[in-house]
Amino acid sequence: MKNDNPIQELSDQLSRIPGLGKKSAVRMVYYLLKSPPEHSRRLGASLMELHDRIKRCKICGHYSGSEICPICSDPARDRRTICVVEHDQDLMTIENSGQYHGIFHVMHGVISPIDGVGPEKLGLDYLKQRVTREGIQELIIATNPTPEGDTTALYIVKIMEEVDVNITRIATGLPVGGDIEYADRLTIARSFNARQPIKSH
Amino acid sequence: MKNDNPIQELSDQLSRIPGLGKKSAVRMVYYLLKSPPEHSRRLGASLMELHDRIKRCKICGHYSGSEICPICSDPARDRRTICVVEHDQDLMTIENSGQYHGIFHVMHGVISPIDGVGPEKLGLDYLKQRVTREGIQELIIATNPTPEGDTTALYIVKIMEEVDVNITRIATGLPVGGDIEYADRLTIARSFNARQPIKSH
Repeated sequence: MKNDNPIQELSDQLSRIPGLGKKSAVRMVYYLLKSPPEHSRRLGASLMELHDRIKRCKICGHYSGSEICPICSDPARDRRTICVVEHDQDLMTIENSGQYHGIFHVMHGVISPIDGVGPEKLGLDYLKQRVTREGIQELIIATNPTPEGDTTALYIVKIMEEVDVNITRIATGLPVGGDIEYADRLTIARSFNARQPIKSH
Repeated sequence: MKNDNPIQELSDQLSRIPGLGKKSAVRMVYYLLKSPPEHSRRLGASLMELHDRIKRCKICGHYSGSEICPICSDPARDRRTICVVEHDQDLMTIENSGQYHGIFHVMHGVISPIDGVGPEKLGLDYLKQRVTREGIQELIIATNPTPEGDTTALYIVKIMEEVDVNITRIATGLPVGGDIEYADRLTIARSFNARQPIKSH
């Protein structure tokens, strides 16, 4: 049954995508088979041209349909603040929060010796040039609160030592709506270390 | 940012597939962007040709790469038993169980007045012809234990009234590993009604 079975073939291809299990992949294929053929043809066409249509922004590295991404080309953004993120998805989450109005540097990774990713792959030399050349005032490090994210944050601080720029890192602590009872030890420790004054006398 | 944003476009298309949320769709697109371009081109090509390569088996209605599906063309299958299923996925689950060696009839639906599906759309006249013409000995109804599945099962029994064939329906009861404590009333009721003798004297 394995030979010449396009359903099997397509669901195998789909289930190679992380987060899509074998069963969901098969369900997707059957859904597409029941939908009008245009649906899967259009989806297929979008997938085929994905890599050709998507570039990395020449300034921040963000995936974009144009040479300079909409964020970097938006005159309303604050160009004295750069937020450093690991991945495009992090940038999207920050954008959706509406909390940040500066520009970005997307590393497309994090220092991780196990995966063979060293700092040279994260565009950090280029970031240093950018910070120096463009007179950036604040560099906000928004790496994940993981060992790799911490290492990368420390590394960025180190290479920026002689650069005249403020560096901050987004806070780690209890998530909003979170429950102290179920928080892990490290989160509790960090939230105590980063405690904020609310009244001083 | 909505214009000329192929990432948005593709993830919108993907998230129209049931079971794929907005977030998983975006994650899929980023995964594909990080993978070699061949990966998404191959996936796209498979999707584009899906409807052209897939036919419904002329005998049982199962989706297949060929006119007659591998099950119907397998000489080792028991041709005196037909199992009636609602959907292709049900057929696949039954096949994977290795429990059934007969052939199938795939209805591609179930009697559901709300969705405007009447018995004429389920190929049941053709099933009756098949049962009569081919001297089928047992018809196993494997519709879901839902009101629609029950109605469809009853309807099949009714149209086969004057046909000389045994009709059975797969058992409803507690799933293996299930917990009586958490079972719903209807499942308990059905499992009592369908109780099996283990010792008689």
